Amino acid sequence: MIPTGIPIKELFRSFSSHLGKDIRVNGWVRTRRDSKAGISFVELNDGSCLKNLQVIISHDNPSLVEMLPIITTGAGISAFGTLKKSPAKGQPIELEAKEITIYGTADPVSYPLQKKRHSFEFLRQIAHLRPRTNTIGAVTRVRNRLSYTIHRFFQERGFYYIHTPIITTSDCEGAGEVFRVVAEHMEEEFFGRPTYLTVSGQLQAEIFALALGKVYTFGPTFRAENSNTRRHLAEFWMIEPEVAFADIEDNLKLAEEMLRQIVQDVLDNCDEDLQFFARFIDPNLIGRLEMIIKKPFEVITYTEAVKILEESGEQFDYPARWGCDLQAEHERYLTEKKFKRPVAVIDYPRTLKPFYMKVNDDEQTVAAMDVLVPEVGEIVGGSEREYRYDVLVEQMKQKNMNLEDYQWYLDLRRFGSVPHAGFGLGFERLVQFVTGVQNIREAIPFPRTPGHALF
Amino acid sequence: MIPTGIPIKELFRSFSSHLGKDIRVNGWVRTRRDSKAGISFVELNDGSCLKNLQVIISHDNPSLVEMLPIITTGAGISAFGTLKKSPAKGQPIELEAKEITIYGTADPVSYPLQKKRHSFEFLRQIAHLRPRTNTIGAVTRVRNRLSYTIHRFFQERGFYYIHTPIITTSDCEGAGEVFRVVAEHMEEEFFGRPTYLTVSGQLQAEIFALALGKVYTFGPTFRAENSNTRRHLAEFWMIEPEVAFADIEDNLKLAEEMLRQIVQDVLDNCDEDLQFFARFIDPNLIGRLEMIIKKPFEVITYTEAVKILEESGEQFDYPARWGCDLQAEHERYLTEKKFKRPVAVIDYPRTLKPFYMKVNDDEQTVAAMDVLVPEVGEIVGGSEREYRYDVLVEQMKQKNMNLEDYQWYLDLRRFGSVPHAGFGLGFERLVQFVTGVQNIREAIPFPRTPGHALF
Repeated sequence: MIPTGIPIKELFRSFSSHLGKDIRVNGWVRTRRDSKAGISFVELNDGSCLKNLQVIISHDNPSLVEMLPIITTGAGISAFGTLKKSPAKGQPIELEAKEITIYGTADPVSYPLQKKRHSFEFLRQIAHLRPRTNTIGAVTRVRNRLSYTIHRFFQERGFYYIHTPIITTSDCEGAGEVFRVVAEHMEEEFFGRPTYLTVSGQLQAEIFALALGKVYTFGPTFRAENSNTRRHLAEFWMIEPEVAFADIEDNLKLAEEMLRQIVQDVLDNCDEDLQFFARFIDPNLIGRLEMIIKKPFEVITYTEAVKILEESGEQFDYPARWGCDLQAEHERYLTEKKFKRPVAVIDYPRTLKPFYMKVNDDEQTVAAMDVLVPEVGEIVGGSEREYRYDVLVEQMKQKNMNLEDYQWYLDLRRFGSVPHAGFGLGFERLVQFVTGVQNIREAIPFPRTPGHALF
Repeated sequence: MIPTGIPIKELFRSFSSHLGKDIRVNGWVRTRRDSKAGISFVELNDGSCLKNLQVIISHDNPSLVEMLPIITTGAGISAFGTLKKSPAKGQPIELEAKEITIYGTADPVSYPLQKKRHSFEFLRQIAHLRPRTNTIGAVTRVRNRLSYTIHRFFQERGFYYIHTPIITTSDCEGAGEVFRVVAEHMEEEFFGRPTYLTVSGQLQAEIFALALGKVYTFGPTFRAENSNTRRHLAEFWMIEPEVAFADIEDNLKLAEEMLRQIVQDVLDNCDEDLQFFARFIDPNLIGRLEMIIKKPFEVITYTEAVKILEESGEQFDYPARWGCDLQAEHERYLTEKKFKRPVAVIDYPRTLKPFYMKVNDDEQTVAAMDVLVPEVGEIVGGSEREYRYDVLVEQMKQKNMNLEDYQWYLDLRRFGSVPHAGFGLGFERLVQFVTGVQNIREAIPFPRTPGHALF
């Protein structure tokens, strides 16, 4: 077995129980500085937290001094020694090295991650090394915490996690361009008919909600759209809760509780990383997160939203007009300028929304909801689902859909149909919102965009 | 808002606090029976647990009696009434209905799920309704619990959850047939080069382990193999932990702790569903699960395994011979007959295993490990990874691989390489092991197999 190290996070959290003791730390060298006073300072990081542990190498120890030339930025080492109070400013502890094991070196001439600021564009080209940077390391920890918190949120409320399929035969009406899946060395279709990568697990989640009550998905979804923006990925993760015996109000309440609990949890558990983002990425970050917790959603209808936009006196690139989709500029005006809080826009014109949304009594609008937040815009999109068989068929016909392809979905309305509702939360949008990273390519380990699928 | 019901699971768990009170339950009718004594009994299920709640409808209540003809198997209803102690055997409580709302009916002539046993083959054809059966409902709850427990196991140990990519440019040497991904309406390659569905997140997980220490994946993986067996799916979920500063022994220890904690957690939290499986699916289930907890892994080398098989006196279809892969029949002999416990086979011939496994000092074998369990066979496969640049290059050349394609992977050995290890756990195999379902198609919501990708 490889000698186990104590995580650096653990050392900083409870250093008093380790002070004066001999301990081991495994990690990677961030920097080394040699002082004229006969000491070298090695900043060691193990990924357990943002902070490095300072390792002190005395030049009185010949076996350690011998190693110094290869204890360079990037090297993977194990340091054994005594944990001491640090006389240096800004750090409570340091490790006085007795033994060092160098597992893997990193040639200073060729190792790309020398100590300096690198552009995010450059780091994307070395996506196999960028997790070793402060920013991507911190994003990874926050992303991990967000995932876990989302699972806990739903599990504690009795939701079941459903793995909806990635390969589907439905090309998901209206969701835009899709990817085709074919077996590499086969002439015929592997699955007997054309198959695609899923754009949403919602329709399949409805199957389970109408059997088990409360479910959610958390999985990858895909769009083959040729758009190169800081908000779009060809492969991204979505969370899609679906609840039986629920309407649009229940849905709004769930989305609000979820966002609030997620943000509270990250504030409670990722303070060090969030402070880093606030300092180097987005100075408004903490205020924006606290706003989510303190301010209830502003709920307005689409019709009210259009009226507010028309009367705003703002110069939009696309003037708002009833019947047209809200643009990003409109969404940001509503949440950032007008209300300065999350805004839920409900009751959109039925022509703007997919076939499965419940038609309201006015017959002009559907029980849709889009939740808008500052910086990111739409972060949640959902609806009450049309659970009345006849109305659903009517909707599908109006949208020129082939009913044959959706027999199983219609069956859910023929047998034991009940009111139900759900929404989708774009996970990378959430990561952007919580970390402040401007480009969504920094919010996912390996971004897939037009022309890019390396690593 | 839709009137909220109390989950039936909650009613059974703490019925004393609800007895005598008026409460609401939302769910689906499993059966209705009309007695000559002027009472109808409705078995209501809401998916929160296996058990139904019995709803009593007195024929003295004309408005309820009027509804009886459409309170049939499959109908989605809300029942409001008084929770009482039940005089019937085998159930502590029942609901005396005062009001019933019928949201959606289910025509007895056309609803396929009438009260009787259905074959699993038949249920797969109605995968949109099968979650309403006892078996698939119970599998769904256990699968959900397993997912959550796996996340908790790793989170509590400081592992980070990494979403490795689904679409990749590597066709993953040696993993068998793959699926190609192309944009539906594009002549050229969307990503600039051919892309495939991932067969494993391991190589990318290594990137993060060598930056953040301990990570795991939990995501879908794919094989385009044309094999129709009860153990294979074209789309399945895998859990892949990867740990820096760890060798094969650390890896074995992690796998053992993980399996034990998972099984213990399911025994603690899914008792009702497990008892159901033990009764109707697999009488040996509970004993098999308890064995995992009580008996430590038997660890043997591949060479020892072959010797045991040769000397076993068993008639195998394929005789075991050093240098040949272990067959399912061999694996099952070792775990079910010879040792009657989980068996970890380590140190396989290097010719049998992929390029990334660490070459042992004998230069003939690699530090691989396959964990075998009764009924399922191989449930975990892993290894220590080759972290020495030169040896890795040598291995890749021996296997005629194109080093150009793996420059980023080799970089991990050029810069800060450290010993590391990991394994893959096939999630559906685990679901089979824990539920006893014979066919893997019952272990996943929507099985994808050759010729089948509906729903």
